[in-house]
Amino acid sequence: MAEERSTFLLDETQVPTQWYNVVADLPEPPPPPLHPGTHQPVGPEDLAPLFPMALIEQEVTTERWIDIPGGVLDVYRIWRPSPLVRARRLEKLLDTPAKIFFKYEGVSPAGSHKPNTAVPQAWYNHAEGITRLTTETGAGQWGTSLAFATAQYGMECEVWQVRSSYDQKPARRTMMEIYGATLHPSPSDLTEAGRGILAADPDSPGSLGIAISEAVEAAVAREDTRYALGSVLNHVLLHQTVIGEEALRQMEMAEVQPDVLVGCTGGGSNFGGLVFPFLREKLAGRMDPTIRCVEPAAAPSLTRGEYRYDFGDTVGLTPLMKMHTLGHGFIPDPIHAGGLRYHGMAPLVSHVYEQGYAEAESIGQLECFRAALMFARTQGIVPAPEPTHAIAAAIREAERCKETGESKVILTALCGHGHLDMGAYEAYLAGTMTDLGLSDEDLRTALDAVPTL
Amino acid sequence: MAEERSTFLLDETQVPTQWYNVVADLPEPPPPPLHPGTHQPVGPEDLAPLFPMALIEQEVTTERWIDIPGGVLDVYRIWRPSPLVRARRLEKLLDTPAKIFFKYEGVSPAGSHKPNTAVPQAWYNHAEGITRLTTETGAGQWGTSLAFATAQYGMECEVWQVRSSYDQKPARRTMMEIYGATLHPSPSDLTEAGRGILAADPDSPGSLGIAISEAVEAAVAREDTRYALGSVLNHVLLHQTVIGEEALRQMEMAEVQPDVLVGCTGGGSNFGGLVFPFLREKLAGRMDPTIRCVEPAAAPSLTRGEYRYDFGDTVGLTPLMKMHTLGHGFIPDPIHAGGLRYHGMAPLVSHVYEQGYAEAESIGQLECFRAALMFARTQGIVPAPEPTHAIAAAIREAERCKETGESKVILTALCGHGHLDMGAYEAYLAGTMTDLGLSDEDLRTALDAVPTL
Repeated sequence: MAEERSTFLLDETQVPTQWYNVVADLPEPPPPPLHPGTHQPVGPEDLAPLFPMALIEQEVTTERWIDIPGGVLDVYRIWRPSPLVRARRLEKLLDTPAKIFFKYEGVSPAGSHKPNTAVPQAWYNHAEGITRLTTETGAGQWGTSLAFATAQYGMECEVWQVRSSYDQKPARRTMMEIYGATLHPSPSDLTEAGRGILAADPDSPGSLGIAISEAVEAAVAREDTRYALGSVLNHVLLHQTVIGEEALRQMEMAEVQPDVLVGCTGGGSNFGGLVFPFLREKLAGRMDPTIRCVEPAAAPSLTRGEYRYDFGDTVGLTPLMKMHTLGHGFIPDPIHAGGLRYHGMAPLVSHVYEQGYAEAESIGQLECFRAALMFARTQGIVPAPEPTHAIAAAIREAERCKETGESKVILTALCGHGHLDMGAYEAYLAGTMTDLGLSDEDLRTALDAVPTL
Repeated sequence: MAEERSTFLLDETQVPTQWYNVVADLPEPPPPPLHPGTHQPVGPEDLAPLFPMALIEQEVTTERWIDIPGGVLDVYRIWRPSPLVRARRLEKLLDTPAKIFFKYEGVSPAGSHKPNTAVPQAWYNHAEGITRLTTETGAGQWGTSLAFATAQYGMECEVWQVRSSYDQKPARRTMMEIYGATLHPSPSDLTEAGRGILAADPDSPGSLGIAISEAVEAAVAREDTRYALGSVLNHVLLHQTVIGEEALRQMEMAEVQPDVLVGCTGGGSNFGGLVFPFLREKLAGRMDPTIRCVEPAAAPSLTRGEYRYDFGDTVGLTPLMKMHTLGHGFIPDPIHAGGLRYHGMAPLVSHVYEQGYAEAESIGQLECFRAALMFARTQGIVPAPEPTHAIAAAIREAERCKETGESKVILTALCGHGHLDMGAYEAYLAGTMTDLGLSDEDLRTALDAVPTL
């Protein structure tokens, strides 16, 4: 019976009630974040101006399971559990013996996986009396998610959006405003960090790193305000594990185990969320999937970056994190997958990669959009630019299966829909999209600015 | 248990396998369509240049149940069954004793209920050897749906899009092109109808009626081509009854019966699809809900139009249909709910209304968008402009319940999401949106042009 089905649904009583912390099961712990001044491991008091204590604890905990608060579950149930789908129509188009499954996170109000962490971040801040959150956003997925989440708990939300996106994507701006957020293009003249950048380059298109600097500065300036980050940090990846925990149950419903897991990696939260629960099963010897990161050729932090301590933002306000980085001063080419344009990779994903539990490949955007069109025309869903990388990688794997005759089970996360990214598709269909890259020289220059510890 | 739940899901094995034809249960049959030349009831041969024989049969059948072909069910299962949701968070905001349920059709690939009929229309044409379909679209929901549907069966799709939408909504255009459709702004110089309009007004913004004329003309010009209409006709409403049939089962899961059904009406297909299965239950005495149509104040065909024979298009190429009409020459004000800007109402909905089984009210767009913001901030989903009318009407009812203390069960259809309609929300949030209306004089002028039979 399961053999004939394509959609594997859980009901609202089956939303996971605990997040999974992969650190508890890794044979070696990940290196700690360091204070930017002292270069000593940061303590809770260093992070207290930025985050509520509950999230700081989650950032460093070695507990395996963290209970999800009821007030978070109530909001998760607006869209969770998300569906797991076998892409039978795409398989047929590819004429492959592979079985392609995708976990679809585009059903959330914001249209991506980001509310999985936005909601608990807002909840924990609210529970500790914080009434206002600041954040940055690139393409707008994260800002939309935090705007939605803060609205659920009656909090204010202030978003610094990378100026190039702010100018080019009014629809995303409107979506954030529908949920009640206040927006600022970044760099802005509202922060010292922003004013500094504008003084050097009044026409700066901005970057995620700059916007982070601004949102952090605005958060620490007020007692009632904290900062929220949409990726990279341990607690963010922790919250995202609801994706993988649900997918584990749904793969059981489908009566299959994955041979290959592929996920797109920008900051790493979608990837970690899908993969860590399966990595647990792998470490315990209960399954043995290949785990593969897919990153854009224009921001290849795993495949071409270096594993070292670097800042999370451009100006250097955040703690130093051991991660694969292209250098905190690096501004990736303007590919359409705005959510993947980040210089670093989550320390946890970087660590897992270094330990050899995951491999990585990079793909150019033309191949990604070609894959997205094949996907849309068969499975109906128009993917966001970010998960087009995951789809392209899944298709690469399925095409290898066609050559070898292997009937591998491929699992990926379709982490968002592309309804607000039609400009990218327009460029692709008009033939004006190009594959953007990264020269060795630019990479060298950016890396040379990274502190040596 | 059902009392505590909010989301009522069916699985893919529970997609309805038959459409329901309300004509079989109506005590009085609806008046037939008439040939525009002879004023005699049209026969199958009159419609054969436009539609495949299977759909012509469905247009006139009095059978109660029509089997859904397997090739249609296969595609329905990409997104169906759609969820039924109790809007508990909105209820809480309204502080109402009412229980508000919505059937959410925005989960389809096109983002609305329209693929429910686009898919079978493409399938039946394909089955009869047709390789190309033409159609019109206003806001773009229908064109997107037909583009998606034809892609599933390897057919060509040519869409005449109302020029004002074509120019203002490039995202919708791109969405249709992603699915492989060819687009023309209407009026175009590709048809006699279009050239005639352009000769009289080179800057014509177009209208649905004009675009229908063009698509019909282009269809009859070629043997391999037929025409597809997204609303109004009996077979379209028939296909949409999957909405109501699923909702009936889901309301049983929720252990409630609706006291009030509200649905937005443009051409009438979303409304008919939700309501007709419940009307069957009402006619059989198994439940007794109030059934209410909600239309925009700018295109109030039921509340201010006249019930008479009129053309479906502007030029007068279609059969004459007995319906509530504002006159086939009427071009509604440019409200944002493009899908509701139509001069007529589905003959079946008009007949049901005339027979007293349904009531109607009209609402201005400011109240609708106010309601939409309340909905988005509580339930997460950003509605398309069309169903903001249904939400506004549901909120009106819930507010009456608050006054009277009644705990009525309200059921509506959220027939699409608004991800591609952010311009409308931008206007609302910026305070530049106005309530548009319809003067008695304009209405009189339009109605005077309607043939007297």
